[in-house]
Amino acid sequence: MSTEILIKKVTKTNFDSFINLLEKMALFEDQSPPDSAAKKRLKEDALSKNPKYEAFIANLGSQDIGFMIIYPTYSSFLALPSLFLEDIFVLKEFRKQRIGQKMFDYCVKLAKDRDCGRMEWWTLNWNMPAINFYKKNNATRTNNIFYQLSKKQIDEHVSNS
Amino acid sequence: MSTEILIKKVTKTNFDSFINLLEKMALFEDQSPPDSAAKKRLKEDALSKNPKYEAFIANLGSQDIGFMIIYPTYSSFLALPSLFLEDIFVLKEFRKQRIGQKMFDYCVKLAKDRDCGRMEWWTLNWNMPAINFYKKNNATRTNNIFYQLSKKQIDEHVSNS
Repeated sequence: MSTEILIKKVTKTNFDSFINLLEKMALFEDQSPPDSAAKKRLKEDALSKNPKYEAFIANLGSQDIGFMIIYPTYSSFLALPSLFLEDIFVLKEFRKQRIGQKMFDYCVKLAKDRDCGRMEWWTLNWNMPAINFYKKNNATRTNNIFYQLSKKQIDEHVSNS
Repeated sequence: MSTEILIKKVTKTNFDSFINLLEKMALFEDQSPPDSAAKKRLKEDALSKNPKYEAFIANLGSQDIGFMIIYPTYSSFLALPSLFLEDIFVLKEFRKQRIGQKMFDYCVKLAKDRDCGRMEWWTLNWNMPAINFYKKNNATRTNNIFYQLSKKQIDEHVSNS
């Protein structure tokens, strides 16, 4: 079996394998995996003419063992697109082999090739392996405060305003 | 003079007024305003066939007094687009009149109309007026850690990997 890690764009051909990895990540994070309607949306949103995100799979030998999701954002200050890394995940049994590092490197290279002014992402504050990984990669840890409104909060806000 | 606040999409017609407001925000934040190359990119990126962001102006009577920049992001967990609020700014002399609130409400309504699973944004951790404003609006303040790689960091990373 080859020990070379290949990063491949998710297309129609390997989409089911990508979903399988996404389900593994949901399990790992103790979240509910995508239901059939969500899977359908994920497929349309990745493979339509105007995709909402791009996904990549890491392949080792004959196995798909990790994935990344990215999309473009924008910096008005730089007047340049940014590359946002939404997810990066490696199957538990394949960790500690620098596979995540290879995927991260690939992503930074994409940011360069696409003339992005920045690459950006966030992590959960208890995810120490991730925090250590990004520290090792000399990423700038900002003090920015990240806010969200859920669909429920959006609906409530619109009703009340 | 009308006291009604109108929110208008930035188009070719009011683009110069939008840039003027963006320059005012840069001054307010003690950042360098966009140079002529950046202004050209901002115009292309807003008004091209596949825009990289959308901008809106708040107009009071005959004056343009504030702006917002938004773009779509994506939640793989929800399998739905999110609406990201990049900038929201009101000229200093027009604050405390709920103009920012009206702009924020408009943005939340857009998130609803576009069937977004979330609305998201971040703020600088010293910006107390913003933090209080988002608290008042019942936004969820997350503990997520936000990371960045600058263009220089991207270049260095690619050279070293």
